Amino acid sequence: MSQANQQTAYDDNNIFAKMLNGDIPCHKVYEDDKTLAFMDIMPQAEGHVLVIPKQKAVDLSDLEPEYAAAILMTSKKIMQAQRQVFERDGIVQMQLNGAQAGQTVFHYHVHLIPSSIHELGRHAAIEVDHEKLAETAKQLAAVIEA
Amino acid sequence: MSQANQQTAYDDNNIFAKMLNGDIPCHKVYEDDKTLAFMDIMPQAEGHVLVIPKQKAVDLSDLEPEYAAAILMTSKKIMQAQRQVFERDGIVQMQLNGAQAGQTVFHYHVHLIPSSIHELGRHAAIEVDHEKLAETAKQLAAVIEA
Repeated sequence: MSQANQQTAYDDNNIFAKMLNGDIPCHKVYEDDKTLAFMDIMPQAEGHVLVIPKQKAVDLSDLEPEYAAAILMTSKKIMQAQRQVFERDGIVQMQLNGAQAGQTVFHYHVHLIPSSIHELGRHAAIEVDHEKLAETAKQLAAVIEA
Repeated sequence: MSQANQQTAYDDNNIFAKMLNGDIPCHKVYEDDKTLAFMDIMPQAEGHVLVIPKQKAVDLSDLEPEYAAAILMTSKKIMQAQRQVFERDGIVQMQLNGAQAGQTVFHYHVHLIPSSIHELGRHAAIEVDHEKLAETAKQLAAVIEA
């Protein structure tokens, strides 16, 4: 069997699984029955949000159609809120499949980053100010709920 | 009205609209009733594929739910074929919203790039060998159809 066919097994103890279970907190921006959106605690730009499915998917190869639609519809809500809150047009949407691509948490997650592909940095090496993240989460959530 | 609320109008003469109309050719990898996938002619890595909806969507803010699901399901097919053909696990999925983010063709498109976020270059400045692209398109299509 080639490397291409090796499928990483889903780890129930990954950090996003723990967020979904409520075992660890997150700066929530939006939640519905199929998705959860929250602030990335190692942002590549101000307002960096992650969207995850409530499905045990390691990467895109596992994602079921109903969750696929929900992921993009939630991403759309988040992006529109980011545009309004940060008063900018440019939002990078990125999703990494496999450690070789740079994936570090093995629960499918979509990055929505108010940045440009030409400016995009790597994840910050240290966590940012949680008070500021909590405030940004509230601003985005308020726009989505409006 | 803030910059955030300015919506770019869909241009019926954009290059991807012309591909969908059949006015200009592409190195097709996959097609169904809602999506088209083809080789990027300015690849950021070997095997770089684009997936577009058969809907006049400028960016994610325009994408309708049925096309959202179709886009991700086609992307999944492409990614699995890329993993098999290029015998690698890492596939970067990226989608740029707005000129400020680096979007250059204003028809929603998903990049699927056999690369790493740490290695990702900018689009090449010149077009690559079309014979090679045609061959890669055939290899990927064969795996999808298998």
